[in-house]
Amino acid sequence: MSTDADAIRHWWRTSIIEMEPGKIAFRGTPIEELIGNVSFPQMIWLMVRGGTPSEAEARLFEAALVAGVDHGPQAPSIAAARMASTCGLGLNNAIATGVNMLGDVHGGAGEQCAELYYDISRRLDEGTVLINAVQEGLDNWRSEYGKIVSGFGHRFHKPTDPRAPRLMALVRAAASEGTVSGRYTDIGEAVQAELGRARGTPIAMNIDGATAVIFCELGFPSPLSRGLFCLSRSVGILAHSWEQMNQGGRNKGPMPPRFLPEYDPEDHSE
Amino acid sequence: MSTDADAIRHWWRTSIIEMEPGKIAFRGTPIEELIGNVSFPQMIWLMVRGGTPSEAEARLFEAALVAGVDHGPQAPSIAAARMASTCGLGLNNAIATGVNMLGDVHGGAGEQCAELYYDISRRLDEGTVLINAVQEGLDNWRSEYGKIVSGFGHRFHKPTDPRAPRLMALVRAAASEGTVSGRYTDIGEAVQAELGRARGTPIAMNIDGATAVIFCELGFPSPLSRGLFCLSRSVGILAHSWEQMNQGGRNKGPMPPRFLPEYDPEDHSE
Amino acid sequence: MSTDADAIRHWWRTSIIEMEPGKIAFRGTPIEELIGNVSFPQMIWLMVRGGTPSEAEARLFEAALVAGVDHGPQAPSIAAARMASTCGLGLNNAIATGVNMLGDVHGGAGEQCAELYYDISRRLDEGTVLINAVQEGLDNWRSEYGKIVSGFGHRFHKPTDPRAPRLMALVRAAASEGTVSGRYTDIGEAVQAELGRARGTPIAMNIDGATAVIFCELGFPSPLSRGLFCLSRSVGILAHSWEQMNQGGRNKGPMPPRFLPEYDPEDHSE
Amino acid sequence: MSTDADAIRHWWRTSIIEMEPGKIAFRGTPIEELIGNVSFPQMIWLMVRGGTPSEAEARLFEAALVAGVDHGPQAPSIAAARMASTCGLGLNNAIATGVNMLGDVHGGAGEQCAELYYDISRRLDEGTVLINAVQEGLDNWRSEYGKIVSGFGHRFHKPTDPRAPRLMALVRAAASEGTVSGRYTDIGEAVQAELGRARGTPIAMNIDGATAVIFCELGFPSPLSRGLFCLSRSVGILAHSWEQMNQGGRNKGPMPPRFLPEYDPEDHSE
Repeated sequence: MSTDADAIRHWWRTSIIEMEPGKIAFRGTPIEELIGNVSFPQMIWLMVRGGTPSEAEARLFEAALVAGVDHGPQAPSIAAARMASTCGLGLNNAIATGVNMLGDVHGGAGEQCAELYYDISRRLDEGTVLINAVQEGLDNWRSEYGKIVSGFGHRFHKPTDPRAPRLMALVRAAASEGTVSGRYTDIGEAVQAELGRARGTPIAMNIDGATAVIFCELGFPSPLSRGLFCLSRSVGILAHSWEQMNQGGRNKGPMPPRFLPEYDPEDHSE
Repeated sequence: MSTDADAIRHWWRTSIIEMEPGKIAFRGTPIEELIGNVSFPQMIWLMVRGGTPSEAEARLFEAALVAGVDHGPQAPSIAAARMASTCGLGLNNAIATGVNMLGDVHGGAGEQCAELYYDISRRLDEGTVLINAVQEGLDNWRSEYGKIVSGFGHRFHKPTDPRAPRLMALVRAAASEGTVSGRYTDIGEAVQAELGRARGTPIAMNIDGATAVIFCELGFPSPLSRGLFCLSRSVGILAHSWEQMNQGGRNKGPMPPRFLPEYDPEDHSE
Repeated sequence: MSTDADAIRHWWRTSIIEMEPGKIAFRGTPIEELIGNVSFPQMIWLMVRGGTPSEAEARLFEAALVAGVDHGPQAPSIAAARMASTCGLGLNNAIATGVNMLGDVHGGAGEQCAELYYDISRRLDEGTVLINAVQEGLDNWRSEYGKIVSGFGHRFHKPTDPRAPRLMALVRAAASEGTVSGRYTDIGEAVQAELGRARGTPIAMNIDGATAVIFCELGFPSPLSRGLFCLSRSVGILAHSWEQMNQGGRNKGPMPPRFLPEYDPEDHSE
Repeated sequence: MSTDADAIRHWWRTSIIEMEPGKIAFRGTPIEELIGNVSFPQMIWLMVRGGTPSEAEARLFEAALVAGVDHGPQAPSIAAARMASTCGLGLNNAIATGVNMLGDVHGGAGEQCAELYYDISRRLDEGTVLINAVQEGLDNWRSEYGKIVSGFGHRFHKPTDPRAPRLMALVRAAASEGTVSGRYTDIGEAVQAELGRARGTPIAMNIDGATAVIFCELGFPSPLSRGLFCLSRSVGILAHSWEQMNQGGRNKGPMPPRFLPEYDPEDHSE
């Protein structure tokens, strides 16, 4: 082949997949050896970071994937996907509509929380004691993201998001069995304690705080806390899009047609 | 260059733009000669189909672009874009969310109506008289799309969508001045008359029926009725996304947080 | 609550999720009982159609999910997601970009193939013998979709797509163990045989043909063959987006910057 | 109506559109008075910020909209939209695919540059002299966005992007006629001069730097520099999607099928 061909092939180089006619291999393993032999969570792991988790690691990973699948039609991502599926779009477009909305505010909390945990961990590595590392980590995090710490508290599930204690119990058990180190579990709980202490009343860890603990324990870089959440939430987005298709409706708006948006003559656009 | 380079360059061949360092030309005209000399509608015309419309054609084209910019937050595309802009996304993502929803049901009526008009026109070319061409065209169209004819009637604007009569007056005037032939204006009104006759009560032409008349008069292939509508509606989608950003809110759902979706234990998913 | 509140709550009714502060239940089961107790594939099953598959059913389902995760950067969905991740977007936007592209041509083959299998199955129920049901089903399918039958043959993997034989071996084994009936396995192979007979040379079943067999054996409605494929392919889309983020690059185009698209002065836009 | 109805209507309040059956008004003006009487750029202005520009303002605004329509298939947004239109998607989905990609890196330069200009302008208001305001503004901007200043230089158009000088000539003329103040024109050129002085060789203003001058002169808040660019670029995205539909192809990848991505066994995902 010419150097031009090499250049264009190199432009699209990848370590994930090797393909030739009749051959598909992922990170070195032929697909036919993976099908039926690895679980779907193991395959996700292999694809996004390489390697194969142990059974125990895969179970913990799987719990986090199961936990985040849905938060109902009050969530803009779910509502939008349901509306999309009444506009003459395919399920692929409806899923994309929902996933696209998982931006910094709607889907970024896990990633932001993982950044906090990793930052505290680095401070521990440098010899700072836990309580100081937590306080310094929080200060540093808030200088970038603001006062409200992602992963803690919930505007809806008060006092407790039922997913978080269950996930924390599983990761605690995994730490006691040696599956994970427990470092980020300690960090997460220390952050929770510090936040409660500072405001004078306990605060709950939410699902983003708990899944970030798990993804950090398993060694996933922080942006993947968001990426993996997107895979998880895609399940609920698909389920709701499909339910809406079966309910029917055409051009479903946010409220029944007899309710009209309020017209407010004063311009608030600037 | 090698044949490989030629192949890859040919893979991305285009008649729209010629680019070299320091040079950008659209369909043969340097960009610096277009900026300040052609109107935005003329530029749209040049880009999507080539050539430059006369001033009179451009005015008619512009009227159709102006007419379709928005239908308020009851429309799922607008509601979704407003929700998206509270999820930590940029305006580009919010616009994409809205435009993506303009599928067959939400954004395809103009295209479907243009198909009907062109089909009737072909029957006229073959010597069929207008009333027969309309009836045969409607039969043919309904065998593909069903009973409800796109472009006529409105579930909300009863009895009349205020945009349609205004657009039809403009295209009638353009026909009388010789800007367009008037053929599709006649066809559109004949379809409207036939639909009213068949059901025994008048039916209004809606904005999709009227813009399709204009786009057909101006010679745009039917899929562009949808494409141009997307450009037009993007304006409203941007305006609403931006207004919502200024209103504020985080993860805006379809209704205020104190309203929860009804849980219906019976499964309707299949 | 008022009837207005009831109306708006009913507008967003769902059988999938029940939510109250501190409570999340999916199709009647609290989330904390699902986390750690059901596998991710079981959770997907519960969400999109309700009920819980047996272990054996879940394994077969899982094999189909594993099989479809990726087809490399030659696929437009993967290439677009990689490009998106260099444009200043989050992983959520990159995933959405890729999934959005899985339209009728790129992601619809499984759904179309499942429609064929179900149609043939209905003919069997009405007493038609298999070979006739297959021929009639193919005729019917082609009148809607055209000559090339989705699910069979591959433009790249010649002679055999390595995923299909592996999946078919698993579903055959599941049928012999009584996990599934084997009806759609028979139908799939009969279609394959008939297509080969008609053209005078064998044709391979591809991954879409094989996963459609599995999803039909497990009772999923045909549109979910596409929906589930989207979940599966999201894994590859995420993996590639993330790899590209780590490779770096800004505004990655389809070829290295030194290659320019060929300018073809002749207009092909209509 | 009940307070519940008021609440839900208020949730979707807007100053942009007032709708009742048979009535559509934008910021107080009935749509039928706008159609045929305002230009498309005037309508865009009315929708996104309210008010109507003078003819001279509208011409300048229009020049900026015309300038940004396309940058060819080397741009990831255009390439992705062309690929999307071969995957069985509608033009709405193809446009959305392209616009979605106009993120911080691909579509955010105008917004970032407008922030710089407005920051320098505020320093002038506070009495700082121009050269100092420029240097302080650049320092401040770089502390957020990094060394490379958006709006200046071009990796492809060397030495000059042909769009920028044309736009700057138009805004200079508009300033001399009193249409705009000329303040941001001065600021833009002072930034350009300072950047050239600091690196010891002249640097060109690019299209983002020039359109940001225009949008600032016309008083648009900085995020709208991105929003308006999205409207402009949508034109090229539509034109290319449509051209590709007419060229044909199915599942168009980034390079002809005979070129395969290079497989690089070393894992670069982390």
